[in-house]
Amino acid sequence: MKNNMNSILLAHGSGGKLQSDLLEKVILKYIKNPIINLLEDSAYLSCFPKGCKSKIAFTTDSYVVNPLFFPGGNIGKLAVCGTVNDLLCIGAKPLYLSLGLIIEEGFDYEMFEKIIIAVALEAKSAGVKIVCGDTKVVEHGKGDGIYVNTAGIGEIKHYFSPQKIEAGDFIIVTGNIGDHGIALLSERQKMKFKTPIISDVANLTGIADILFKTSGIHCMRDPTRGGLGGILKEIALKSNIEIEINENSIPVNPGVNSICEILGIDPLYLANEGKFVIFSKEEKVVSLLRRTKLGKNTAVIGRVIKKKQKGEVILLTKTGGKRIIDIPRGELLPRIC
Amino acid sequence: MKNNMNSILLAHGSGGKLQSDLLEKVILKYIKNPIINLLEDSAYLSCFPKGCKSKIAFTTDSYVVNPLFFPGGNIGKLAVCGTVNDLLCIGAKPLYLSLGLIIEEGFDYEMFEKIIIAVALEAKSAGVKIVCGDTKVVEHGKGDGIYVNTAGIGEIKHYFSPQKIEAGDFIIVTGNIGDHGIALLSERQKMKFKTPIISDVANLTGIADILFKTSGIHCMRDPTRGGLGGILKEIALKSNIEIEINENSIPVNPGVNSICEILGIDPLYLANEGKFVIFSKEEKVVSLLRRTKLGKNTAVIGRVIKKKQKGEVILLTKTGGKRIIDIPRGELLPRIC
Repeated sequence: MKNNMNSILLAHGSGGKLQSDLLEKVILKYIKNPIINLLEDSAYLSCFPKGCKSKIAFTTDSYVVNPLFFPGGNIGKLAVCGTVNDLLCIGAKPLYLSLGLIIEEGFDYEMFEKIIIAVALEAKSAGVKIVCGDTKVVEHGKGDGIYVNTAGIGEIKHYFSPQKIEAGDFIIVTGNIGDHGIALLSERQKMKFKTPIISDVANLTGIADILFKTSGIHCMRDPTRGGLGGILKEIALKSNIEIEINENSIPVNPGVNSICEILGIDPLYLANEGKFVIFSKEEKVVSLLRRTKLGKNTAVIGRVIKKKQKGEVILLTKTGGKRIIDIPRGELLPRIC
Repeated sequence: MKNNMNSILLAHGSGGKLQSDLLEKVILKYIKNPIINLLEDSAYLSCFPKGCKSKIAFTTDSYVVNPLFFPGGNIGKLAVCGTVNDLLCIGAKPLYLSLGLIIEEGFDYEMFEKIIIAVALEAKSAGVKIVCGDTKVVEHGKGDGIYVNTAGIGEIKHYFSPQKIEAGDFIIVTGNIGDHGIALLSERQKMKFKTPIISDVANLTGIADILFKTSGIHCMRDPTRGGLGGILKEIALKSNIEIEINENSIPVNPGVNSICEILGIDPLYLANEGKFVIFSKEEKVVSLLRRTKLGKNTAVIGRVIKKKQKGEVILLTKTGGKRIIDIPRGELLPRIC
């Protein structure tokens, strides 16, 4: 391995500062597409198909989660949910997925079958079809069981974007944060808890159905890698707003909270795989979401306080202080998704 | 590593018999989509978008080629060409690509940059836009430099399919076969030749432009993994035809031929990354293709002799004998693409 300056580090894949650098300094330097902002998770193909009312959205994600099976799911379920949620986030109805598999030689056939079953079940639950695929096998020691890529096509129903955010918008999160991160961490470290922490991995089609029918929704995101803190900072920077969030209002499972306190981890930077952060003009959507199973812990966690700012995110702490939230710089938990 | 029955083998990714088994016995067992034949490389989304004249095609491929840089190209160029050619094959005009990267920790930053440059240049040459992407980094020893996934969206212009093949169709190949396979092999084995063998990796948009304007084209395929022999057998089985090809007519670079003779390799099973096999009612397209740079060695290699057969592919050998061509069973060259 070469030194840091000349080689790719784990943190280049963390969803944090180094990842943005890699994207901006290499990928976007060469790959330029005037019609589309590559920094977004999904692309609006607003000029395609020509002369057609329906417009499509396109997204992709590779999943390298470790371990492959964790409390609440496996890489197959995660791959479908992640890509479905990415499409929902920008206001598209997910329709078709591709499935690219990179399998390590010697990988257990039965585990492979379980992963494919999870893909099939989750696709059915999300109302999407897996329509094309590809399978590659690499030598033992050149992979880690299986890596999964899903690309997704959706039909654009609404236009949600950081650019639409206004001063005064309520910032809403659809439930407890950090469950996925702690579920993965506990599985990796073989930690045992009285009440095990289960990943929140889920497709949010039900939640999105409600949001698509509600007026005043300006922007939605899924706080995966980088967590709630990372995504809020990213949005604040993109839309030049100032955000204030209240630590007391952020829903966190008490079990997750205890583990975070013991290990000195901030739940704000833990990954989620079944949550949306919503910027909404109105608060009424909260009560609608609370009636759903996946959204029962929905809460308003803050407000957009100013527009045309430098993108500051301020956390009002439980102890009455203020803390500036930044994009995570290092690598908290590699291979979380 | 477990025994063969319980675990995935390299040959499960070879494009041969074991790969079809894996697809049929596991993947297609659970993932069923009545509207689409998942056995095809690309999906026709014939019912999407609704009420719209333009219909879209969707495809995906992961690239795990080893080595990453080889005579004639690198994994970045390959990833764009492969997905573009897959779309062209079914009669779609490639428009948008996604780019999913799985990078091994410690991978050389400069090599990464070269790969991204190759992606950008090839996308430009093929007239497609990279519109969304994802980057993951895995620990050193859990990958092999970089794996690349590209999914692609195209607009359907023509409907080419094995089902359209008729008795009497000319079987045409657009140039010398086996160049990619031998280029990879020689790079891996550090073999030195007087005239180095260069991979044929290329996007075939120019060739497809001609084919899209020519009447009588029934089916097109790119003979990548599994080679010309593998793809012909696959098509023969799908469309219940009997095929006869003439070994004397199959264009092979003399250098590739010599290496194949020395090593006892059959060029019919070597991978190509810049060739089409065409089933055409008429022969006239050959002279049109021969005028192009990438198609200058285009040749008629055989005919469809019967329909409603069991899918036999017969090779009339140079020595005047007959040989039955089957799908390759084992693994000739792993990680060729």
